[in-house]
Amino acid sequence: MQFHIDHKIVNQIKGFINKKNDLKLTELLSELHHADVAEILEELELKQSVYIIKLLDSELTSEIIAELDDDVRDNILKSLSSKEIAEEIDELETDDAADIIADLPKEKKEEVISQLEDVEHAKDIVDLLRYDEDTAGGLMRKELIAVKDSWTVMHCVKEMRRQAEAFEKVHTIYVVDEDDILKGRLSLKSLLTTSTNTPIKDIYNPKITFVKVEEDDQEVANIMQKYDLIVMPVVDEMGRLVGQITIDDIVDVIKDEADKDYQMAAGLTQDVEAGDTIIQLTKARLPWLILGLFGGIGAAMIMGTYEEIIQSHAILFFFTPLIVAMAGNVGVQSSAIIVQGLANNDVKGSIVNRLWKELLLAIVNGIILSILLFIYTFSTDADLNTSLAISISLFSVIIVAGVIGTFIPLFLDKRGVDPAIATGPFITTSNDIFGILIYFMIARAIIGF
Amino acid sequence: MQFHIDHKIVNQIKGFINKKNDLKLTELLSELHHADVAEILEELELKQSVYIIKLLDSELTSEIIAELDDDVRDNILKSLSSKEIAEEIDELETDDAADIIADLPKEKKEEVISQLEDVEHAKDIVDLLRYDEDTAGGLMRKELIAVKDSWTVMHCVKEMRRQAEAFEKVHTIYVVDEDDILKGRLSLKSLLTTSTNTPIKDIYNPKITFVKVEEDDQEVANIMQKYDLIVMPVVDEMGRLVGQITIDDIVDVIKDEADKDYQMAAGLTQDVEAGDTIIQLTKARLPWLILGLFGGIGAAMIMGTYEEIIQSHAILFFFTPLIVAMAGNVGVQSSAIIVQGLANNDVKGSIVNRLWKELLLAIVNGIILSILLFIYTFSTDADLNTSLAISISLFSVIIVAGVIGTFIPLFLDKRGVDPAIATGPFITTSNDIFGILIYFMIARAIIGF
Repeated sequence: MQFHIDHKIVNQIKGFINKKNDLKLTELLSELHHADVAEILEELELKQSVYIIKLLDSELTSEIIAELDDDVRDNILKSLSSKEIAEEIDELETDDAADIIADLPKEKKEEVISQLEDVEHAKDIVDLLRYDEDTAGGLMRKELIAVKDSWTVMHCVKEMRRQAEAFEKVHTIYVVDEDDILKGRLSLKSLLTTSTNTPIKDIYNPKITFVKVEEDDQEVANIMQKYDLIVMPVVDEMGRLVGQITIDDIVDVIKDEADKDYQMAAGLTQDVEAGDTIIQLTKARLPWLILGLFGGIGAAMIMGTYEEIIQSHAILFFFTPLIVAMAGNVGVQSSAIIVQGLANNDVKGSIVNRLWKELLLAIVNGIILSILLFIYTFSTDADLNTSLAISISLFSVIIVAGVIGTFIPLFLDKRGVDPAIATGPFITTSNDIFGILIYFMIARAIIGF
Repeated sequence: MQFHIDHKIVNQIKGFINKKNDLKLTELLSELHHADVAEILEELELKQSVYIIKLLDSELTSEIIAELDDDVRDNILKSLSSKEIAEEIDELETDDAADIIADLPKEKKEEVISQLEDVEHAKDIVDLLRYDEDTAGGLMRKELIAVKDSWTVMHCVKEMRRQAEAFEKVHTIYVVDEDDILKGRLSLKSLLTTSTNTPIKDIYNPKITFVKVEEDDQEVANIMQKYDLIVMPVVDEMGRLVGQITIDDIVDVIKDEADKDYQMAAGLTQDVEAGDTIIQLTKARLPWLILGLFGGIGAAMIMGTYEEIIQSHAILFFFTPLIVAMAGNVGVQSSAIIVQGLANNDVKGSIVNRLWKELLLAIVNGIILSILLFIYTFSTDADLNTSLAISISLFSVIIVAGVIGTFIPLFLDKRGVDPAIATGPFITTSNDIFGILIYFMIARAIIGF
């Protein structure tokens, strides 16, 4: 088995395309998993990718298209006719189909839908388009196996055979009543071990974890993770079974959310990857750097107001980078731990309690660091007052930075804003300014200039 | 359904424990999912938790114990006898059982194993203890359904009925040969739709993705994610089927890795949570802050060597916080994007190419930011030379910070070190020092002091 696509195979494929050796190309690509072919397509030029998509059977290419990165997929779909796209969509499961159609331009969307062959499939897809992509409805697929509680085991097995095509992916057999209201689930064990005329009513398990269509995707992820669920049913406002969510979609939600928080903490907006273009990367990075620039200018302005003491107390100015660095570090540590705790539903107790704890923590860290700094400054060239001023400032800055770093994400979360934006450059920049301000104010109070 | 444990229920449970109202307590706790009970236990005092564990049936408590946070679990297990622990372990699946036993002190470990009732189960657990927890072997469970390729469909269904207890969790039926070598998988569809005397040989699907026991857990996670697998078989060096890994364990691997990278970027060592003690949190945070302190002292030392020009060029000193902040921000952005790319197997091309791209990116950002800074400084109080010196320094610092931020994680990765340690305080601190050094060197060259 080959999990990493190497350059040799990519070059081989390029060679076959150039020579229009369709036979060899089909043979080679059919051997590979569709996820691997998708990876290869991302390495090829658009024309080459389109050549492959048009060459292979839509049963295979539909799966490849579903795996592609959004930008590569968009470009490939632009090169296909509505008819060709509809053929791909026909092969896909409803959730993947809806995701792809949702990204099409409005007119093409309608054209593609009108050309879908299987009307039931098309109805399901259109249904799914109504849901916000960040909700349970946006994640679910329509394909599932449901049996009525009024049926017998025999009827049930017959029905399942009829729907045999979906069998390879059956994880749960849902039980619904005459009105499609979700009642529970049926284990394979019960189905295989009870006599064929037992009514489903008598053997199904009514304990089942479900979510409503409008549930937030993060919450769906938390629930499935907490209860170790592989698959979870989704019900509408009336409790009717309308779809199911499988864990592989949730893995993507978890990964995306973690990536997003990480990027926020690192000062990157948008969803960027190492492989993106310079322009995309600049867009993601420049706004935060400009914020940092303003923060630095702010710090310089504050320091400018103390210019008259620069000769008598030069050493104070030497320690400004240390003060802003520590303010930044403490702020990011505090906010990161809160952001992560909020994401994992792990922040217990009130805001006041959290702030109190952070305060204690900042005092412990602050005392240790201030003593270290005092020892250094006093043992080198500063007098007692200056050494005290620098150390006490560091202590105060650590406390303020810790409290701000804790408070802002908790505050944002309470207001319904994603607390992750409070990490990284946002916290460091505001702490830079507060840090410098506190530093010089304390120095003035102690040294008395 | 109740997904968040509220204080009311926790208080109710505390009340029942105080009044020793075992009946009500059992009634209430049996209604809840074991994952919810685990969450409640984490809110209780140790004595109260142990009371509940001893009260409830081990069929339920074993699942609760498996869900607990490590530190809470350790404390509870210390309060149980080896016999009591063995009873819990008897009820658990092999992977959870092995994880719990692995964490016990050496002597207790042997005592517990010797008191396990089911010898086959005990053998499987001891087997699993041999594997490193960061490998496929450390993640897998022994429980699985395997059928021989020489059997008929009839034989197969009979065998599955015999093992009926495991049925509720069957995701895949594996096919092996007489020597237990993994051959493929059998779909439920084939089993239900072919005649009972068809040999399995004729109907199984030989396309199956598997991993070896020694495979790294991150790689296992990448494979299962890429191929959207719910479950994956694990084979030994001879290709014999020895276990299977389910996606819920992989979700934890993905989450843990993302959390770890995030914490590294935020300057937190160890696996800390918002709910940890002050001492744990200090241990996680203080080392990075001390690193930052040394960086700040280094910056102060460099600035000290330029003391003679502080009066004539005070403004240079005002902009040091800006220079270090920008160096830090650019460094973290560059390293974060590489660390994330490496984690997602998304960094293509050579190190030289990546550095080249980062250089271009730094030039674009650097030019924009330097021009903005030049406009500000020149239009306020600085002369042309000083404004130029500050802006050109910023430009140079951005380029150096970007290149260092890109190079260090790539270098660490090549050497087999986790690149995530290169983000956060590590990068900011080294960039602080480089930044200040470059800044004053360039200023001296341009202004000529």
